[in-house]
Amino acid sequence: MSFSNHFSIANIPYGIASTSERPRSVVTRIGNSVIFLADLDLGVSEHIKAALSQPTLNDLAAVEKAELQLLRKNTQRLLSDQSAVSKFGVSLGEAQLHLPVKINGFTDFSCSKEHLLNAAEAVMGKAFMPPAAPYLPIGYSGRPSSIVLSGTDITRPYGQYREGEQVAFGPSRALDYELEVACIIGKPTQLGDRVAISDADEHIFGLVLLNDWSARDIQGFEMNPLGPMNGKSFGTSISPWVITLEALEPFAIQPPVKDVPSQPYLQDKKEKPSYHIELKAEVLTDDEATTVCKAQLSWMHWTFRDLVAQQTINGCNLNIGDILATGTVSGAGDDKHGCLLEMTKGGKVGWKTTHGRDRTYLQDGDGVRLSGYAGDGVGFGECVGFIKAARPL
Amino acid sequence: MSFSNHFSIANIPYGIASTSERPRSVVTRIGNSVIFLADLDLGVSEHIKAALSQPTLNDLAAVEKAELQLLRKNTQRLLSDQSAVSKFGVSLGEAQLHLPVKINGFTDFSCSKEHLLNAAEAVMGKAFMPPAAPYLPIGYSGRPSSIVLSGTDITRPYGQYREGEQVAFGPSRALDYELEVACIIGKPTQLGDRVAISDADEHIFGLVLLNDWSARDIQGFEMNPLGPMNGKSFGTSISPWVITLEALEPFAIQPPVKDVPSQPYLQDKKEKPSYHIELKAEVLTDDEATTVCKAQLSWMHWTFRDLVAQQTINGCNLNIGDILATGTVSGAGDDKHGCLLEMTKGGKVGWKTTHGRDRTYLQDGDGVRLSGYAGDGVGFGECVGFIKAARPL
Repeated sequence: MSFSNHFSIANIPYGIASTSERPRSVVTRIGNSVIFLADLDLGVSEHIKAALSQPTLNDLAAVEKAELQLLRKNTQRLLSDQSAVSKFGVSLGEAQLHLPVKINGFTDFSCSKEHLLNAAEAVMGKAFMPPAAPYLPIGYSGRPSSIVLSGTDITRPYGQYREGEQVAFGPSRALDYELEVACIIGKPTQLGDRVAISDADEHIFGLVLLNDWSARDIQGFEMNPLGPMNGKSFGTSISPWVITLEALEPFAIQPPVKDVPSQPYLQDKKEKPSYHIELKAEVLTDDEATTVCKAQLSWMHWTFRDLVAQQTINGCNLNIGDILATGTVSGAGDDKHGCLLEMTKGGKVGWKTTHGRDRTYLQDGDGVRLSGYAGDGVGFGECVGFIKAARPL
Repeated sequence: MSFSNHFSIANIPYGIASTSERPRSVVTRIGNSVIFLADLDLGVSEHIKAALSQPTLNDLAAVEKAELQLLRKNTQRLLSDQSAVSKFGVSLGEAQLHLPVKINGFTDFSCSKEHLLNAAEAVMGKAFMPPAAPYLPIGYSGRPSSIVLSGTDITRPYGQYREGEQVAFGPSRALDYELEVACIIGKPTQLGDRVAISDADEHIFGLVLLNDWSARDIQGFEMNPLGPMNGKSFGTSISPWVITLEALEPFAIQPPVKDVPSQPYLQDKKEKPSYHIELKAEVLTDDEATTVCKAQLSWMHWTFRDLVAQQTINGCNLNIGDILATGTVSGAGDDKHGCLLEMTKGGKVGWKTTHGRDRTYLQDGDGVRLSGYAGDGVGFGECVGFIKAARPL
C-alpha cells in the first residue's frame, strides 16, 4: 500500500530521506513523490535553508511557528504546480527514508480511559482506574535509544516472566503492539520552565504514528511498582512523516468531557484542542492483512496540549526532538482495542485472521501496520514492523 | 569541603572543565588542581588526542579499554611528578566544571533490598518485596533531559498529590533526596545485541554519585501502575568526576549472596564484581551539616555488571553516555536510610539537625551533599544541590 492519497497538497509533511546520489536531508511528499526541500526556491531565510540540509528534522523543528507556516505556504504554492512535482520529485522507491528526528526524550502517556480499564481487567481480572488517571495524564519515561523507523524489524525479546508459580526466562510469549499517536517537540524549554496549556501548540512540531511494541509477560512481571521497562525497551516504531498541526487544523475537534474537573494548568480554553484522526491497526500474516482495531484519536481524554502541560508542570525541560505519545488508543467496543492485551483479555481469548489462522499474541513473521487518516488528503501513511524470531542466546 | 584527599595519583578521574581562557575540554584532578589533559604529552594516538579536546567525555568514553588504561598509566606517570602538577594544573576555583557527558539514556534501578522494603513500609504501612525484585534488578527509565551537574540548584516542583480524601495541586510538600551511584556507559551496543555479564565492564566508562531528587507526594499519587515520572523528572544531580573501574579495582568486593538463584544471564563468574565504597548523605541547613545516612555500595544486591546485563537482555541498545543508577543505597539500620522517605517513615517521623532544627522532608534553602570514598586516595568528591522555592505560577 502506498497511501498516496494521504499526501495531497493539503498535507506537506516533513521527513528525512537520502538517495544513492545525495545524503540525508529534509523532504516532503506529494502522492508517491519525495521532494528534497533544499532544491526548491522557497524564498526562506538562511537559517531555514541550512535546516533543510540537515540529516534530521531537529533544526527545522526548532524554527519559529510563523516561519514554518511561511515555509509551508510557499511549499504548497510551488508544488501545486504538478510540473514542479514532476521536475523535483523522486519516486518513493528511489528514496531511502530515515528516522526523522534525533530523539532525546520519550514519554509514553496513557490517555485512553478504555485502555486503562480494559488492560487492568485483562491483567487483574477486574476493571481498575489508576488513582491519578482521572486527574492528569499518567505516563512513564520510555527508552529513547530503541525508537526505530517504520519498516525496521522488531526482534522478539528475551526476559523473565511468571509461568504458573515459577519464574521462567526465555523469549517473550506475549508479544503485542500498541496503536498510538505521538507529538514531536519543536521548541525546547529550560529546566524549571512550565509551558502554559495555551502555549503548548508552539512547542509541537507535528505528529507521527507510534507502535509501542510490548512484551506483556516481561512487562507484567517487572512493572510493580516502578512501571514498564524491559517489556517495552526492545523497540518502538514511528512513522516517517511528521504531520504538522497546520495540516491537521481542519480536523480539530473537542475531546471527551472529563470525569472530574481539571486543575487550572490542565484547563484548556482552545475551542477544539484535539484532532479527528481515523486510526487503524492491521496484523499482517503471510499474504493477508487482518484489521484488529479501528479507533479515533479524538476519543483520547487528554490532548497533546495536556501532555505538554503535564510534562512541564514540574519544571521538567523539553528538548527538540522529544516524543510525547498518547499510549494505546482504544475505544468502547470489541473492535476498538488498540492492542492485543485488550483484545485477547490477557492472552486468554484467541482470534482468527481473515483467512482463518489462529492467533492470540504476535507470532514470528507476523507484522503490524498502523495507519492514520484525518481526511481530505491529509494522512499519516503507515507505521509497519515485522517480528523476527528471538536471537539464540 | 574540597575533598582533596579523594583525588590522589591513584584516582585520575575524568571531568569536563573550562576557564576564562579556554573552552570546555577533558580534565583530570590531583588534589585541588585541575589538569587539562590535552596539555600533557601523553604519547597517545590521534583519536584520543582529539577526544581530549571535546566538550564532553562521550568520545573518550567510547575509546577501547586497553587504550584508556594506557592513557591512565601515562597520566599517572607524568603527574606523579608534583612539579608537573604545579606546571599544568589550574586551581579548582579557577576552573568551571560542566556536566561530564551528553546523556542520551537514563535508567534508575532499585538494587537495595532494604530500600525496597523500607519504602514500601513507609508508603503502605507494611514491608513488601516487589515480585520481580528477587529475580532481577527492577528499574525504570528516567528523564535524561533534567540531569544536571552537582552545584545546580533544584527548584521545588509543582504537581498533584493526595491531601486526605482530596486531590490537591501545589508545590511539593515532600521533597526528598536519594543517595545513589551510577555508571556511565562507554562502549555502545546495537539494537538487538545483548551484553554478557562477563563483558559488562567493557561497556562501563566509570562511576559517579547521583542524587535522584524525589517529590514523594507527586510520585506517590502518579506511580500506580506506570511508575514514577513527574515526581522525579524535575531534576537529577550527578557529581562532576567520573571515577574509572581501574581506580576502583583495589576496592573490589563480593556483593551479598542472592536470596534466589539468578538466571544464567545474571550469574557472574567474576570473583569480586562489586566495589567497597563508603557513601554519606548530609543535609545542609544554614551553617550546619547533618549526616543523615552512611552506607556502602557493596550492600547492593545487584552490581553494575548485573545492570548492564539486565538493560540489554531484551536487546535494548546502549548509547555512549547512558547512565544506569543503583537506586537508593540503603542498609539495615536507622542510620542507613539513603532517603528521607525511609528515615521519616513517609513523612510521619520528624528528625533534628545537629543544631536542633526540626525537619521531616527538605525545606527551601536546604541542601544535600552526597560523598563517596573508596579508600587510599580514591574518592568521588561530592554531589551537592540546594532547594530553591517553587516558582510562582
